[in-house]
Amino acid sequence: MESVINFQGAKIFVKSVSSIGEFGLIDRIKNLVQESKHPDLLQGIGDDTAVIRFSENRALLVTCDIQVENQHFRLKYTTPYQLGRRAMAVNLSDIAAMGGKPTFALVSLGFPKSFPLVQFDELFKGMRDQMADFSGTIIGGNLSHTQDVLIIDITMMGEADSRKILFRSGAQIGDRIFCSGNLGFSGAGFHILSKFDEDFSAKFDKFVQAHLQPIPRIFLGQLIAKSGYGSAMIDISDGIASDLNHICTSSTVGAEIYEARLPGSNQLAEIEKLSGKSWLELVLHSGEDYELLFTMKADTPDDILKTIVQESGVQISEIGKIVSMKSGFYLLNQYNERVPIKPTGWDHFK
Amino acid sequence: MESVINFQGAKIFVKSVSSIGEFGLIDRIKNLVQESKHPDLLQGIGDDTAVIRFSENRALLVTCDIQVENQHFRLKYTTPYQLGRRAMAVNLSDIAAMGGKPTFALVSLGFPKSFPLVQFDELFKGMRDQMADFSGTIIGGNLSHTQDVLIIDITMMGEADSRKILFRSGAQIGDRIFCSGNLGFSGAGFHILSKFDEDFSAKFDKFVQAHLQPIPRIFLGQLIAKSGYGSAMIDISDGIASDLNHICTSSTVGAEIYEARLPGSNQLAEIEKLSGKSWLELVLHSGEDYELLFTMKADTPDDILKTIVQESGVQISEIGKIVSMKSGFYLLNQYNERVPIKPTGWDHFK
Repeated sequence: MESVINFQGAKIFVKSVSSIGEFGLIDRIKNLVQESKHPDLLQGIGDDTAVIRFSENRALLVTCDIQVENQHFRLKYTTPYQLGRRAMAVNLSDIAAMGGKPTFALVSLGFPKSFPLVQFDELFKGMRDQMADFSGTIIGGNLSHTQDVLIIDITMMGEADSRKILFRSGAQIGDRIFCSGNLGFSGAGFHILSKFDEDFSAKFDKFVQAHLQPIPRIFLGQLIAKSGYGSAMIDISDGIASDLNHICTSSTVGAEIYEARLPGSNQLAEIEKLSGKSWLELVLHSGEDYELLFTMKADTPDDILKTIVQESGVQISEIGKIVSMKSGFYLLNQYNERVPIKPTGWDHFK
Repeated sequence: MESVINFQGAKIFVKSVSSIGEFGLIDRIKNLVQESKHPDLLQGIGDDTAVIRFSENRALLVTCDIQVENQHFRLKYTTPYQLGRRAMAVNLSDIAAMGGKPTFALVSLGFPKSFPLVQFDELFKGMRDQMADFSGTIIGGNLSHTQDVLIIDITMMGEADSRKILFRSGAQIGDRIFCSGNLGFSGAGFHILSKFDEDFSAKFDKFVQAHLQPIPRIFLGQLIAKSGYGSAMIDISDGIASDLNHICTSSTVGAEIYEARLPGSNQLAEIEKLSGKSWLELVLHSGEDYELLFTMKADTPDDILKTIVQESGVQISEIGKIVSMKSGFYLLNQYNERVPIKPTGWDHFK
């Protein structure tokens, strides 16, 4: 896509941001912003959160996420309370992906002058309650008017034992790949809402709930980090095809995914017809599940895995294993064929 | 202002956010968000930054500021590079107001698909360079598309000696009130740009520069905090009438301002005619100067003040003194009359 700039009276055609996509822009920022040499900066751009040393073994986690009406959410599908909870949950999920504990949040809010006060209150109640679920608090923020849309930008802080944090870069060849919960449910829920508005059948409720009210996997993330057997972790925001690719790129490895073990696939059959997308497409590429995707060392004892599931109360599925970078990033299908996975996911930039 | 909500098919008229203004909304958030009992939270909502204990005497400062195109800036008046510097400077100014040292920033950016890549680069270069002026770095962020406008939300972090931080609440009766630099220049610059676009006379350049490129008073803030004689501090974002009122409210005191000592007033004479606003109105209410407004103990030795000016290289003016809350908040004019000051400032919500 091209843009037009007026320069000394002449129109010049130049490249627009959309010509290089979200990850292209992030790489560009990384190159523009020189690497910091600050001794306390343990992780800058390139993981779920930045990591800053607090003291000997304590680290501060910090991340932010901007959500724009009609890009990330539609007010006709959600109550302001649900939206508040969801906006916070999406940020909490990044803290979960580091194995951290959330502490404080700042909220920047942009809204039109006509935004109803009662909805403003409900939005903040939703954000407050979602934080309170994990003993966190809103400690600051900023308000602005916008011409027409609602904008929520949350800065989330958390803390973690700096020796136990799971970065994207820690996966090793032979490590086992796991995910929590169900995949593709949020994408399915979005299709249900788009097709039926609020008049959807009760049987689809689980998908719609997965989309509107994702549950940040805070305790699960902490248990994986504490176990000492985790090696890399990320939350699933863009779909596992894209998010597992981030782990592979950061760790310079490849990945093999077992199609037969992908969770939730059989439940998505009815959605295939409605959405025109195969269950596999939903599972791999639809994103916004906010489940955890993580790798565990090859020698992780079964007891450790059982304890993680029991203590967190969250189902986990072993869906693949880490292979060499040379082997690639592929799906092992029902005929035991290797099908390359394209690392494309839900991209708000398209 | 009223808004309309559709409720079960009926239209209901309700209060909109604009009916209670920015500070009304902030009070509302304070009440909705319960006070945190986290032992490390030294200051939540209600000062220039939140303050979190790092270790014994070290504190983390954190704040955010959302800037929306056509609400806070116009791309026709500024280059993307200048805009990047300014967006960062506004946040750095909040760190200065606590007497802190900036460390890291996160940038959330929303932009239309057609936004030129070269302007994206320039914006980040401006932000990067402004941070680098104080040895700070951008360590993370988030990107989103918007329908049409540019949105910049910056989260700024800094650190300070927790024993030396100057809160809004520390002013005592008898304390002397100071401000740095010139007041009303940024407001004057905005009027010049609105009136002449880019074709303004060179004599107005200092006003336009004050508006487009405010200088965060980081070193000055640190010197005031370190001196041991400072009692309260805030940065001037909404105009001293509004910002000094924040100090008065937080400290439960009043303030007397000497009209004759307000800096820059004589230079604003020509702007009075152009803008239709008196110099006094510009100085008290126009805001966006990003100078520091601070109180010093009554017994502050002159040597201390001289050292602060010499080491920072920034001019300071003694503009008033803290009085009892009962005495009020007023200007002492040229006839030695007390003229009450209305605590209204530049309000993007109007």
